[in-house]
Amino acid sequence: MAEEEKVEAEEKDLIEILEPSSGPIDLARYVDYVRDPAAGAIATFEGTTRDTFEGKRVVELRYEAYVPMAARRLAAVCAEARAAWPVLRVAVAHRLGTVGVGEASVFVAASAVHRAEAMEACRYVIDEVKASVPIWKKEVYENGEVWKENREFLERREAAVGPVPERKKAACCCGSKVRVDEAATDGKISAV
Amino acid sequence: MAEEEKVEAEEKDLIEILEPSSGPIDLARYVDYVRDPAAGAIATFEGTTRDTFEGKRVVELRYEAYVPMAARRLAAVCAEARAAWPVLRVAVAHRLGTVGVGEASVFVAASAVHRAEAMEACRYVIDEVKASVPIWKKEVYENGEVWKENREFLERREAAVGPVPERKKAACCCGSKVRVDEAATDGKISAV
Repeated sequence: MAEEEKVEAEEKDLIEILEPSSGPIDLARYVDYVRDPAAGAIATFEGTTRDTFEGKRVVELRYEAYVPMAARRLAAVCAEARAAWPVLRVAVAHRLGTVGVGEASVFVAASAVHRAEAMEACRYVIDEVKASVPIWKKEVYENGEVWKENREFLERREAAVGPVPERKKAACCCGSKVRVDEAATDGKISAV
Repeated sequence: MAEEEKVEAEEKDLIEILEPSSGPIDLARYVDYVRDPAAGAIATFEGTTRDTFEGKRVVELRYEAYVPMAARRLAAVCAEARAAWPVLRVAVAHRLGTVGVGEASVFVAASAVHRAEAMEACRYVIDEVKASVPIWKKEVYENGEVWKENREFLERREAAVGPVPERKKAACCCGSKVRVDEAATDGKISAV
């Protein structure tokens, strides 16, 4: 049972940030968590490592997070979903460390009485995970590796703190190939 | 492995209408079917029997289908999703017979390179299953039972063949409590 980081959240939300040693996400754990006799619908989303990006062969992804902030933000995202839709239960898991091709890095499950509510809440949560939760990924190719950040995350950051230089922006919806170095005082970008 | 009705469909679609003897839907079978090294996203939807409807305690649901037509329509729905979104694989399973509270009656899984495509295709498929696939359900309460038909199905039927009498229409999104008797020449309604 991998349960590395559990935060104070709504009683019916399960939020877990899984350490590298945890292995594959146990999808059934989260689906079963949101199962409820009052539910008529369960929607899930699984983000998986795909084998190519812009023509390059991806070997694996590696995820890092500022865990306390990521966990707090995930709890807030679930609360926002709960405020917007009458969901019964929500579960979110995100792996850290290495995630091989075909494996899940993130999983969201939401249950509700009606199907539209479950699907819309699930979509909101995964969109927000991509846009506002401080988890970064490094793509490891056959001949190199690079940090990436989702376009949504950069756009949200831009809206909050001002323009992001053009070179930081994503060429496609999968995000830019840079990682914003939060520790740098001059806001420089580190591209690995 | 229950695989009662398999139809000619796109090579990458798995469509199964499961006979009453098949037992619970093996969700992992369909998720694993849509898993693909090229996929970055898997969206699923599970329709489950909920314990109440309009204040009445539901004991179980029972599903019946005109199987050849239901299977053909399911194949067409998957083809429509494939035409509208660049999905990689689609799987749909629907149980017939008795489905207890909390159990899945229908399951849809779709994979795609990007998450929006997977989620939108999944939503299209389940919406069409409810609106256009000839599968009916009977709700069994503690003190009686009743056939139901989805509101979407009646609305689609109305658009195709003309107005449905007011008394046939659903009071909520979960459908009316009548089953249109297709065999009756006078269009009479049988309410069990």
